[in-house]
Amino acid sequence: MNILVTGATGFIGKHLIPALRTNGHNVHILIRPGSDWRGLGVQHVVEFADDIDHLISYFEENEIEGIIHLASLYVAEHQPNQIKDIVLSNIYLGTALLEAGKTAGINWFLNIGTIWQNYNVPDQSDEYNPVNLYAASKQAFMTMAKYYTETSSLRFCTLKLCDTYGPDDTRKKIFALFERISKTGEELDMSPGYQRLDIVHVDDVVAGIIKLAGMLSKNEKVRPEYVISSGRQLSLRELARLYEQQNGAKLRINWGKRPYRNREVMTPYKGVVLEGWEPKILLKEKEC
Amino acid sequence: MNILVTGATGFIGKHLIPALRTNGHNVHILIRPGSDWRGLGVQHVVEFADDIDHLISYFEENEIEGIIHLASLYVAEHQPNQIKDIVLSNIYLGTALLEAGKTAGINWFLNIGTIWQNYNVPDQSDEYNPVNLYAASKQAFMTMAKYYTETSSLRFCTLKLCDTYGPDDTRKKIFALFERISKTGEELDMSPGYQRLDIVHVDDVVAGIIKLAGMLSKNEKVRPEYVISSGRQLSLRELARLYEQQNGAKLRINWGKRPYRNREVMTPYKGVVLEGWEPKILLKEKEC
Repeated sequence: MNILVTGATGFIGKHLIPALRTNGHNVHILIRPGSDWRGLGVQHVVEFADDIDHLISYFEENEIEGIIHLASLYVAEHQPNQIKDIVLSNIYLGTALLEAGKTAGINWFLNIGTIWQNYNVPDQSDEYNPVNLYAASKQAFMTMAKYYTETSSLRFCTLKLCDTYGPDDTRKKIFALFERISKTGEELDMSPGYQRLDIVHVDDVVAGIIKLAGMLSKNEKVRPEYVISSGRQLSLRELARLYEQQNGAKLRINWGKRPYRNREVMTPYKGVVLEGWEPKILLKEKEC
Repeated sequence: MNILVTGATGFIGKHLIPALRTNGHNVHILIRPGSDWRGLGVQHVVEFADDIDHLISYFEENEIEGIIHLASLYVAEHQPNQIKDIVLSNIYLGTALLEAGKTAGINWFLNIGTIWQNYNVPDQSDEYNPVNLYAASKQAFMTMAKYYTETSSLRFCTLKLCDTYGPDDTRKKIFALFERISKTGEELDMSPGYQRLDIVHVDDVVAGIIKLAGMLSKNEKVRPEYVISSGRQLSLRELARLYEQQNGAKLRINWGKRPYRNREVMTPYKGVVLEGWEPKILLKEKEC
């Protein structure tokens, strides 16, 4: 299959691309002007600088069958001057891809969402309530997508991710923090630590994406959205204890010295887990 | 009340502003750089060129109580190169206003929507299905707004408009077309003409907006959305006949010589009409 991937230079993209190629797919990537895509080992690159007609030609000439839309501007707590970029990255770019995909007659569009689109809603319900403006923009893109699914035969499905971890993660995530303070011995002030996290290894995330892409490609019946979930929810305190046990380390954390974040997610959304998929890697010594 | 109006230079804006002033309100308008706002008789003008902090200061200094958000980029059938402007005008601008309004502590936000957000859905159901990308972008803005209503005390309500008409309408609307062919005697090829229209006089639309702004300001209980509707649905053929009768004119229309538009709205969405409001002006000789 000729598959176009956006967000190829991000944490998940870097793991997805080799896996797609191992599975025999022909990977094309879409980049913004100025992005550094060397080192990804990809030959097929299309640049997007607002020229949707160029995208249409590229899709047609390269017989793109589907799009995996990972690209996203993630901002946990935004500043006013970031709103325009959030709207352009998380709503406009995807809409441009759908426009080009509809016109070029591609078959499917796998959209990556976040469980943060469903703040404090009962499990299984798909009620929308965004944790932050980032999550709202992901939902707003799905709102735009409805126009394209209603006016074309394009198959569209959203895979909502929970927290992710794994090698080569340059994002400032919790395990990187644990590793740092474990090495330096420094003290760290944290929230009370009772918020629970659902965290999945990037290899499992990649397997889920490839699984769903296959379902879309084979015209299997899919729901409008699925969740990638570990099936476990551990509190931050439990995660820290696990890290200590598995690494023989001692973390000097002052629990409760900082307040919870605004709209802290205490219990992650569960939703409907991707059919036929389950996480293979539970928190292991190596990663944790 | 200090009220900020966007889209002041548009058809409805031009009618709304004098009416707001007659009702004793202090009208501020938000304009894009380069807009020509002279002739509107407004003294309070704030320019928006992506500086949200400037908006916040303006709202605070001028004690803006509420916003009437009329500004919109209307495109019935879009071209690919219009998508970015649609997203910026119909999603980003409103989001920037909500951000500034939340920070400055304004009380309410009256959003103007369109009944085209509800294509072919049963009356009263608020099921979303956009007629076109324009309608999708209006809904996507409401999706973004949810973040602000969940994280502030800002009161947000959407008033969905049906077709509108009235004096000084520079949009290429049906009555302008009838008037032209009635004067020139030219023949006009049209669709079969059985699509039904719900059309309201701009004075009634303005009365509805002012009514809803009052409800929001007085903290009255409001639904998330209302519709402005004439309560009548006339087919295009019936409208033409009415025009001929009331103006003693003869329209040379070749019905059925053109196809219906893609996703032509045959039966407009009814929804829930604004409480305590009803149209006063039914199609009159003067306008029609």
